[in-house]
Amino acid sequence: MQMTTEKMLSTAALNSWKLVIGRLDAAIAPLTHEQLQRQVAQGKNRLLYLVGHLTAVHDRMFPLLGLGERLHPELDEIYITNPDRALPDPASDLKQAWSEVNTRLTAAFEKLTPQQWLEKHTAVSDEDFAKDPTRNRLAVLLSRTNHAAFHTGQAALVK
Amino acid sequence: MQMTTEKMLSTAALNSWKLVIGRLDAAIAPLTHEQLQRQVAQGKNRLLYLVGHLTAVHDRMFPLLGLGERLHPELDEIYITNPDRALPDPASDLKQAWSEVNTRLTAAFEKLTPQQWLEKHTAVSDEDFAKDPTRNRLAVLLSRTNHAAFHTGQAALVK
Repeated sequence: MQMTTEKMLSTAALNSWKLVIGRLDAAIAPLTHEQLQRQVAQGKNRLLYLVGHLTAVHDRMFPLLGLGERLHPELDEIYITNPDRALPDPASDLKQAWSEVNTRLTAAFEKLTPQQWLEKHTAVSDEDFAKDPTRNRLAVLLSRTNHAAFHTGQAALVK
Repeated sequence: MQMTTEKMLSTAALNSWKLVIGRLDAAIAPLTHEQLQRQVAQGKNRLLYLVGHLTAVHDRMFPLLGLGERLHPELDEIYITNPDRALPDPASDLKQAWSEVNTRLTAAFEKLTPQQWLEKHTAVSDEDFAKDPTRNRLAVLLSRTNHAAFHTGQAALVK
């Protein structure tokens, strides 16, 4: 089946997301709880903090992109509002939360049409969106992909 | 003027590139030669190496995307083939090369239509492209944007 130009374009963006998440996932999955305590550089964030941070930021995409309720709102205070080591880590399995959020999110992304990718996200008003239609779902996807790549570069410093 | 769906989609990808490059550029521009000698973490790449590396990788996009001759092929050996500090830095101004490459590249990107973004890049054969049409210019742009974000995350560790 031949894809339309529109579908090819949105698929390229989605593939880029899947590539970045897949690489980070492959790097994180084999790490023990102890290995996740390592800092990316002296005095900087622990790998575990990055996992929590990215899980929380990605989880927020469910409501931001109008894709349903989020799964782990309890992570925001520890991994977004506060810096690393300010609050204790939750007893729950962060690696599992990370995997669950990304799997469900990616499944929801797969269902969006190119036109739906260009619809406004929920953090922009109708009025502002009319002035600037680039504030769409796709811009959020690309921004979060870059954000995940940004922290992947930091995680890659840990040997 | 109303943009087509196709144009909106490719513009989102180009905006994402411009955002990442713009942020990195703003971080690099004010740094002195001495500040560029700092390592992103102990024993890791210097900021100057990252600037040279990204300049060389981006410069290679001219021929890779069929956008003309590259400007600085001499950087490959120092900043791609070899690791940091294996070879001496060139006497030329790397910050200027970085800026020039990105400016010219972005100007060339601006001229591509959505259909041209979906054309094959020059490192894939006609036969392979027929099997996998996702190996297009847009995939390269998104990949290089993620690559730049990856190293931006490392550069951000330097205070």
